[in-house]
Amino acid sequence: MNAPLTLNPEELLQIDAYWRACNYLAAGMIYLRDNPLLKEPLKPEHVKSRLLGHWGSSPGLAFAYIHLNRLINKYDQDAIFLAGPGHGAPGVLGPVYLEGTYSEIYPNKGEDEEGMRQFFKEFSFPGGIGSHCTPETPGSIHEGGELGYSISHAFGAAYDNPDLLVTVVVGDGESETAPLATSWHSNKFLNPIRDGAVLPILHLNGYKINNPTILARISHEELENLFKGYGWTPHFVEGSDPETMHQAMAAVTEQCLLEIRSIQAEARASGKPTRPRWPMIVLRSPKGWTGPKAVDGHKVEGFWRAHQVPIGNVRNDPAHLAQLEAWLRSYKPEELFDQSGKLRPELKALAPKGMRRMSANLHANGGLLRKALRMPDYRDYAIAVTKPGTTVAENTRPLGKLLRDIMRDNMSNFRVFGPDENSSNKLDNIYEASKKTWLADYLPEDADGGELSPDGRVMEMLSEHTLEGWLEGYLLTGRHGFFSTYEAFVHVIDSMFNQHAKWLAMSKAVPWRAPVSSLNLLITSTVWRQDHNGFTHQDPGFLDVVVNKSPNVTRIYLPPDVNTLLSVSQHCLESTDYINVIVCDKQKHLQFLDMDAAIKHCSKGIGIWDWASNDDGEEPDVVMASAGDVPTKEALAAVVLLRENFPALKIRFVNVVDLYKLTPSSEHPHGLSDKDFDSLFTVDKPVIFNFHGYPWLIHRLAYRRTNHKNMHVRGYKEKGSINTPLELAIQNEIDRFSLAIDVIDRIPELRVSGAHVKERLRDKQLECRNYAYENGVDLPEADGWTWPY
Amino acid sequence: MNAPLTLNPEELLQIDAYWRACNYLAAGMIYLRDNPLLKEPLKPEHVKSRLLGHWGSSPGLAFAYIHLNRLINKYDQDAIFLAGPGHGAPGVLGPVYLEGTYSEIYPNKGEDEEGMRQFFKEFSFPGGIGSHCTPETPGSIHEGGELGYSISHAFGAAYDNPDLLVTVVVGDGESETAPLATSWHSNKFLNPIRDGAVLPILHLNGYKINNPTILARISHEELENLFKGYGWTPHFVEGSDPETMHQAMAAVTEQCLLEIRSIQAEARASGKPTRPRWPMIVLRSPKGWTGPKAVDGHKVEGFWRAHQVPIGNVRNDPAHLAQLEAWLRSYKPEELFDQSGKLRPELKALAPKGMRRMSANLHANGGLLRKALRMPDYRDYAIAVTKPGTTVAENTRPLGKLLRDIMRDNMSNFRVFGPDENSSNKLDNIYEASKKTWLADYLPEDADGGELSPDGRVMEMLSEHTLEGWLEGYLLTGRHGFFSTYEAFVHVIDSMFNQHAKWLAMSKAVPWRAPVSSLNLLITSTVWRQDHNGFTHQDPGFLDVVVNKSPNVTRIYLPPDVNTLLSVSQHCLESTDYINVIVCDKQKHLQFLDMDAAIKHCSKGIGIWDWASNDDGEEPDVVMASAGDVPTKEALAAVVLLRENFPALKIRFVNVVDLYKLTPSSEHPHGLSDKDFDSLFTVDKPVIFNFHGYPWLIHRLAYRRTNHKNMHVRGYKEKGSINTPLELAIQNEIDRFSLAIDVIDRIPELRVSGAHVKERLRDKQLECRNYAYENGVDLPEADGWTWPY
Repeated sequence: MNAPLTLNPEELLQIDAYWRACNYLAAGMIYLRDNPLLKEPLKPEHVKSRLLGHWGSSPGLAFAYIHLNRLINKYDQDAIFLAGPGHGAPGVLGPVYLEGTYSEIYPNKGEDEEGMRQFFKEFSFPGGIGSHCTPETPGSIHEGGELGYSISHAFGAAYDNPDLLVTVVVGDGESETAPLATSWHSNKFLNPIRDGAVLPILHLNGYKINNPTILARISHEELENLFKGYGWTPHFVEGSDPETMHQAMAAVTEQCLLEIRSIQAEARASGKPTRPRWPMIVLRSPKGWTGPKAVDGHKVEGFWRAHQVPIGNVRNDPAHLAQLEAWLRSYKPEELFDQSGKLRPELKALAPKGMRRMSANLHANGGLLRKALRMPDYRDYAIAVTKPGTTVAENTRPLGKLLRDIMRDNMSNFRVFGPDENSSNKLDNIYEASKKTWLADYLPEDADGGELSPDGRVMEMLSEHTLEGWLEGYLLTGRHGFFSTYEAFVHVIDSMFNQHAKWLAMSKAVPWRAPVSSLNLLITSTVWRQDHNGFTHQDPGFLDVVVNKSPNVTRIYLPPDVNTLLSVSQHCLESTDYINVIVCDKQKHLQFLDMDAAIKHCSKGIGIWDWASNDDGEEPDVVMASAGDVPTKEALAAVVLLRENFPALKIRFVNVVDLYKLTPSSEHPHGLSDKDFDSLFTVDKPVIFNFHGYPWLIHRLAYRRTNHKNMHVRGYKEKGSINTPLELAIQNEIDRFSLAIDVIDRIPELRVSGAHVKERLRDKQLECRNYAYENGVDLPEADGWTWPY
Repeated sequence: MNAPLTLNPEELLQIDAYWRACNYLAAGMIYLRDNPLLKEPLKPEHVKSRLLGHWGSSPGLAFAYIHLNRLINKYDQDAIFLAGPGHGAPGVLGPVYLEGTYSEIYPNKGEDEEGMRQFFKEFSFPGGIGSHCTPETPGSIHEGGELGYSISHAFGAAYDNPDLLVTVVVGDGESETAPLATSWHSNKFLNPIRDGAVLPILHLNGYKINNPTILARISHEELENLFKGYGWTPHFVEGSDPETMHQAMAAVTEQCLLEIRSIQAEARASGKPTRPRWPMIVLRSPKGWTGPKAVDGHKVEGFWRAHQVPIGNVRNDPAHLAQLEAWLRSYKPEELFDQSGKLRPELKALAPKGMRRMSANLHANGGLLRKALRMPDYRDYAIAVTKPGTTVAENTRPLGKLLRDIMRDNMSNFRVFGPDENSSNKLDNIYEASKKTWLADYLPEDADGGELSPDGRVMEMLSEHTLEGWLEGYLLTGRHGFFSTYEAFVHVIDSMFNQHAKWLAMSKAVPWRAPVSSLNLLITSTVWRQDHNGFTHQDPGFLDVVVNKSPNVTRIYLPPDVNTLLSVSQHCLESTDYINVIVCDKQKHLQFLDMDAAIKHCSKGIGIWDWASNDDGEEPDVVMASAGDVPTKEALAAVVLLRENFPALKIRFVNVVDLYKLTPSSEHPHGLSDKDFDSLFTVDKPVIFNFHGYPWLIHRLAYRRTNHKNMHVRGYKEKGSINTPLELAIQNEIDRFSLAIDVIDRIPELRVSGAHVKERLRDKQLECRNYAYENGVDLPEADGWTWPY
């Protein structure tokens, strides 16, 4: 198909007119609140009081968008569009409005003069249209508010979508960010047979807010080397003359699409998935292209001054007003829109139709394409627990088997993600269903233990950022996933978590967005078993970040053993529109609940463990509570120490799986009512709460509860280096001895009568520490402790 | 100086013997608790019970280290060594021990048999030597626990150290991380005249924990292109035969050093700082080099199985024990150490001497080199505030002037850092003293507004990770710095903050480490003025991350205006060993305190503002408290609304600058005693606390205080999109109307009598919202509100 790669004169005129319409709209959005078609001379009162928005990258974004439109029409291509510099929303909203989607979804912004006026006025206006590619933007799965995630989102969208072209404009400012810089390597994880294609367009706009960008200020040779080094085939479109640039962009985009199609056809015909050097485009165009060349004697177009609002103080400065009017009229709106404000039909014809419009593509509203997972019965993966607290097992291993079978049954819409840690995290049964995706080179030794395959569906790269970005892109386009990562280093993606939580919270308020699968995050290799890696690997603080986000989208679970982890995971995998954070360590731990008990416990989320309590349904003397695996074991061991020494002491044992149960029901949908909370924790008895994370989080959640003043929380408090597990617990006072002493200290009757017991406990604690210091391992009786009753 | 670039046979034998000694030590550290010189046959009881440590990268790290030693001796080169893969500490600790530094600092690990035994036994052992390059490691400024920061730390160390060579081994696993991937671009910010050199050694070890690395599995051409694209000149040392590899490494390291010296000499002679294509080395060697080739029939050397402990279960498996012994004996320890355990003199001679040893280099204990800043009198930058709450000013601009003058007076040991935002953050007076460092290309238009210079000392790159890494490296080598960044996106470096806080906390417990300058972080462009960028830019949650770290190293300040910001900043810039987090917005805000009052207020950190209170020193009816600029303005406006409507109501106004004042003194050195807290906040009166961040943080800090039950906190609760400032405040209920209503609701006498007032306040609130929705700006009387009394 040797289609001519240049535009004929009429095509050129039309595409340029369409682009002028986009640029007119972009400028209009930033400036106008009235007189949208410039039917009258521009007056100060037509201009918004507060000028907000980012002009700089908008023309380039629209330029890319409409050249893709041309290919969609010509090749009936399924395509979506991601704008890395999401603050260039005017450059996206323009084309989206022109192709009619905006008006279909938001009828008050119709394709007429009044609709255009509303569209302009409400942009970046209180209660109106966001200044980025927010969830309200049709066709967007990438807001571009925080920079750095465009490429990884694009790859996530392309996986398992063999017919989809994901075009992604990458800002050259964004390119300096860490997450973006490594995400170019995503091409080693994309299979040309099974997956779609990503076409990155690096927009060398030249400037950030006040600075040139690095990539715009290195030599052509370096730039070319860099992208070849990243494994891409770069194509360059460089210049500023619209006519030349349209011809170049038309030719290059078409060439890229043909390259992509040829790569895919070859791989699919041969059945041999190799790593092609996929095409990418470097689009070098002036910042604020077609905008004012200079304002007040200072260069604007092609300089950083074009970043936001190129001409300020328009309402009060007649010269500025005149310059704005001249600029707006330079697009000749009267040639583009008819008297009613409708785009002229010959231009309208350039837009793709129906769901081929990138703004109406279902992949960008992935909930509509989402199919529920085929789920095996998770109870089949249960381990036998005949007596609580007497056997040990690796908590995550059965989950790996469940994930393996989910994978087997959902081979085109489920993936597992982890930064080189799925084996370390004991999830390696997953590889029986599918290996690790790997399109880079192979060596003979990979045959024994490599677990690599171009057809693999387990995504492993040592970049939490890239994994999180892939997963978000995968979920937002309607699929399912599971991400496990080391607890301390999940902080690496705090900011991505924040942004995804914000996206979900906003999406839920957008009626036309269908729910997407939840983002399921297993936090493992937790603090209490980082006794060997030391202080840098001990940080359970991610939960403190999570709780600040909307209660509509955040869930936190701390299953203490295998069966509770299975039950919680099943629930999370079937849910939508949440970020489910599951905290559970990978090592061998005591098992507490058989599957029936686990299901009951997890469905309540919090509950009394009768087998560990001796209050016999009466008011206890003390409540021992726990959340998390190691803290639960230590709390139980403390209960035993207390019962041995104070048989008459009535202890209630409460375990928390669903952390938000502690929050008032007014603050989180999972929160217990005060009545239920009081019935568990009493209104006046001492509560010793042994928590997995930083202790203050429990106070932050429960400070309004009746009995809060008696709640004494233990948790990690930044004490640790190389330890044994028990010695690490002792340092942070979450160990059995410290907890038992805590109880003695809080019950007046025991303070005196228990003084000698305290002394013995301290001695025993010291013995445990000394044993650890001498032998490098825990005292066997402490390490192998089991529930005796 | 045409020195021969190959080793003569004797040199070769010696350097290889030295390397064998390093590798022997590395393996010994992982395995042995006794029989350190293998004088007896190896028995199970000589082996540790728990085998911990990372063998895989250790031989390569030692290999690099000792080849640098050779150059240090030959050229009397000042050099330090950073190990990106810090878990390869055995490969660093070995050379450090061999050159005597370890024994000098830790006399119980002497250079004799007993010392070696202790050294082995205590490695990765409770209470002993960390498994990474922790602060206890002589010569380390980079722990390498969390991966990704080695290159940025190295550049930070090299800035303003013209004679220093910073060698940095970068792991190929680490290379996949986002922060590392972009940090290669640091070479555009290093001036060959003024700064030292960074020599990166990319260690293509081939594997991570369980996976191959990307960079080890792309073509040589791609790898070369990638580093040329990043602006480096790559040199390759590839193979596994020790003899060949020693020759290659000796030649290449020497060639690189000569290239570096020639680049520097040329630039310094000409006075023309251009961007050279600095050399870097790609060292491709087998993972677990010289270790067991295979164990139990599975490949180990040169595969991921060599990552940690290559032979497990040694105490119980005689075959494994025998294999371990054979492996250890393959290094021929008897040829390396004399009978007493001392390194043989001909080998000892290979180590540099005194402070030329990289483990004893003062730059790696930068506090010893640190000189206090020459500080102008910050009071000279004060703005006049004749009457509180009546004038407005940009809070950060005078600070920019102070920073400018500090820069002027400290032109070789102070830098300012920011991600393309120093102008946006109104700190641009700084450029009068020094421009932005820029070694990439220039264009003519840079002359008008570029503010770029190869001699600049303001560091701007759109990567918070790289900036934070540079700054940490700069501080740890004894200099000073100031970093300002957007509030929402400081979460990007949550994890770096955590790691630096851990480094500082541990360093403080290391007696030989001298204090380094604090890391000063100004958080600006804050949530309450992100009304125009919207929801993605609204996140004040960084403080919730900060408070989890050790109280010994964390400080948080919320100065509400210009003069308090100046006072706080002065204090922070002179402090050591803290991370000072200062939160203050850049926009125009009301000014409250003149300089004298600001100094008094900041030195207390919290206090009653008498001018805003009408309790006249008596017990008030209600306490209105605030922390942060916008919340303070709204709280004051609420006070006025209340006084207008309820003249008899006695209101005390408390402002908090030093957030940790709220914490009990037992938890943080800045914490108020309960008595002082009670005297400010009363023991039983309602307290309305208007907080800058998420409201729960105040509860987390103050939950133990007497009057906590009456504390009602307002703050950001994830409500926002495009707003006006007041309308955003209203959405989150930190606005004057909501606060006044909060007071009415909490004072029984007002609940009835104030019902009509509440209604009026609600009406006025609605009017403000409607005005914002209609006009896109706040009602002028609300926006321009001033303190009336």
